[in-house]
Amino acid sequence: MAAKDTLKINMERLKAAFDVSSNIGATEKNGLTRLTLTAEDKKMRDIFVNWLKEEGLSVRIDDVGNIYGKREGRNKDAKSIMIGSHLDTQPRGGRFDGVLGVLSALEVIRTLNENHIETERPIEIVNFTNEEGERFTPPMIGSGVATGNYTKEFAYGLRDRDGIFFEEALNETGYKGQEENRRLNVEYFIELHIEQGPLLEKNKKEIGIVKGVKGMTRFEVTVTGHASHGAHPAYGRKDALVAASKMVLAIDEATQKYEDLSTTVGVFEVFPSIVNIFAGEVRFTFDVRHLDDDIRNTVIRTIQESLEQISEESGVDCSVKQTWNIDGTHFSAELIDVIQEESNKLNYTHQYMVSGAGHDAKFMNDICKTAMIFTPSANGFSHCEEEFTSYEDIQKATTLLLNVVLELADKV
Amino acid sequence: MAAKDTLKINMERLKAAFDVSSNIGATEKNGLTRLTLTAEDKKMRDIFVNWLKEEGLSVRIDDVGNIYGKREGRNKDAKSIMIGSHLDTQPRGGRFDGVLGVLSALEVIRTLNENHIETERPIEIVNFTNEEGERFTPPMIGSGVATGNYTKEFAYGLRDRDGIFFEEALNETGYKGQEENRRLNVEYFIELHIEQGPLLEKNKKEIGIVKGVKGMTRFEVTVTGHASHGAHPAYGRKDALVAASKMVLAIDEATQKYEDLSTTVGVFEVFPSIVNIFAGEVRFTFDVRHLDDDIRNTVIRTIQESLEQISEESGVDCSVKQTWNIDGTHFSAELIDVIQEESNKLNYTHQYMVSGAGHDAKFMNDICKTAMIFTPSANGFSHCEEEFTSYEDIQKATTLLLNVVLELADKV
Repeated sequence: MAAKDTLKINMERLKAAFDVSSNIGATEKNGLTRLTLTAEDKKMRDIFVNWLKEEGLSVRIDDVGNIYGKREGRNKDAKSIMIGSHLDTQPRGGRFDGVLGVLSALEVIRTLNENHIETERPIEIVNFTNEEGERFTPPMIGSGVATGNYTKEFAYGLRDRDGIFFEEALNETGYKGQEENRRLNVEYFIELHIEQGPLLEKNKKEIGIVKGVKGMTRFEVTVTGHASHGAHPAYGRKDALVAASKMVLAIDEATQKYEDLSTTVGVFEVFPSIVNIFAGEVRFTFDVRHLDDDIRNTVIRTIQESLEQISEESGVDCSVKQTWNIDGTHFSAELIDVIQEESNKLNYTHQYMVSGAGHDAKFMNDICKTAMIFTPSANGFSHCEEEFTSYEDIQKATTLLLNVVLELADKV
Repeated sequence: MAAKDTLKINMERLKAAFDVSSNIGATEKNGLTRLTLTAEDKKMRDIFVNWLKEEGLSVRIDDVGNIYGKREGRNKDAKSIMIGSHLDTQPRGGRFDGVLGVLSALEVIRTLNENHIETERPIEIVNFTNEEGERFTPPMIGSGVATGNYTKEFAYGLRDRDGIFFEEALNETGYKGQEENRRLNVEYFIELHIEQGPLLEKNKKEIGIVKGVKGMTRFEVTVTGHASHGAHPAYGRKDALVAASKMVLAIDEATQKYEDLSTTVGVFEVFPSIVNIFAGEVRFTFDVRHLDDDIRNTVIRTIQESLEQISEESGVDCSVKQTWNIDGTHFSAELIDVIQEESNKLNYTHQYMVSGAGHDAKFMNDICKTAMIFTPSANGFSHCEEEFTSYEDIQKATTLLLNVVLELADKV
């Protein structure tokens, strides 16, 4: 095997690939609208498949449109190393989310090819279908079906807002392949992704090593007071908005107690929301996210107690209903160690972190050793046109990905 | 003049009048939907006019549908004492708001008549049109035109939600009278009304003596943060809802500093209000109400400073725009003293208070000596079907109104 030190990714080539991607579904403000299985997504997929073929990979499409490109290893029995992510975006999303993971994987393959590097293990690149879940909800359908978390029938039965079935969209774009193509034989999955948060930038770190994906528990809350005219004195009001505001702050302040804990109040609706009437009812949702399920459950209990106390003190009623729970995902300790060692060798500054969002890696973790590498996101923005990661950071992260792949490629 | 002590209102007769009123526009839950100049309002007006005629009053209708019934005094040159309120209600409003003021005035007239009491001054009863302002906005149109605060043309040009002009509704119900009928010659106006707040009940007082109507200043606020995915760590968020919640509490807590100060956050809209996105923008309105304009302006400055500080600390932008201001109304000190003296003579427990809402009395205060008497409202509810004042309290307040009228009736 060639010494890793002598291998260099070709940043101009990677930039050129980004330039192609950034023009397919481009928005006016430097973003991308490339929803899954639309004309834009098909255009990107067609180009991507061509790139894979140009690299001599054996390309296959599975029955939910996931695209795989396999670079054979010396050892025909060895399980592969899979790298990649997704090429679809949110409406007016960014140019990096998902795309970085696929294009950096392509650059790794290209670098191996131009340097005629052979590996023991096969290396596979993947583009998963409908990671974003914006056109067809829920997200991560491609990796979900590939890992057995969702059935094909479930995926096919999903409809977009226009009533178009997922299966129709697959057929229309020509990306409905064979079921046997998703029988994966993978030892490691590594997904390079933008951080979608401000911590690397804040801490001036070049690399985030992701220990796992936060578990999430989601709730619906209804606060019922009694609406009345603004002429009502301050005394004796049962103002649902004042009580709900205290709850929002209690939910927000709970994040102070533990590192890597986040909470989000999302939906927030006030009734009647009329200029001279104070609120009789507020309905809102909140979620609590943490990698550690015990910590998350402790925080949830604290928040629930706070909400009860606030409603009692405010003289309002409050109902809290859990609507969703998914436990934390712990990535492979072996893989995390390898990433850290390679990052050290490259003298990249790095930190451990946890992902607040789901990723294809979350599902892949069910079937193989999995980890993620994060790059800094300017201002922490993501899922928006302002999403930005510098080419300097991309170069480092892709080099790290290459070196991790090389480190693992002969470990059989 | 007959000794006040010997005069007694007839509570059964007053209850019977309430029974009639409570069945015109009755809702399933003991409320009333009797919007101004609708079929229900016309029915109530027709009955009311008959009652006035039965009492031998000279009835006149003015060009905005206000109904006056005059009981002549001995002194033809003397200005009258006017008593009354309004018979229209909110949608699913209560049976007492406005109605109490009119029916108690009628009971005063009936008591004077059955006891053959002559007075120096004429006594007039009034039912003002569209006090509620629900069908035609703004409120207090009848008293507004009668006192020169609005022009007839302004009133006629108002439309309801179905596009029907105020003038059409007047014509349809047959209540468009003559302009000269609103040339008022009034010395005193006294409006008996439910409190629309919980203070009398809380303080166990039978009578509220209203010193005036709070001035009100209203604002529109836009809080602009940056929406992002709930995957974003707690650190570095610019969550517009968390900031706006702090503002709601600051606006609410400002009421602690002064007696009779109230604030209301009414409209409150969160964007995007999606389950996995924290808020990028919140738009809300708030008002500040206090009788004393200096106090109100001081509180407004304090709130504005709080909002600025909160937005700075939260890293969000905040724009605050004043959209409405009306100064406080101070009622007649002479009349307030008379009410208090008469209440003392009757051994009624009472307290001074200020009204948080506008009333016809607010406009009448511009053209004559004006005051209001409040009765307790159960739980402070008003403008809703649960609105309730006991007949015990109504009996006391109507007796007080009678005695105040008698006290003033010969003061020429």
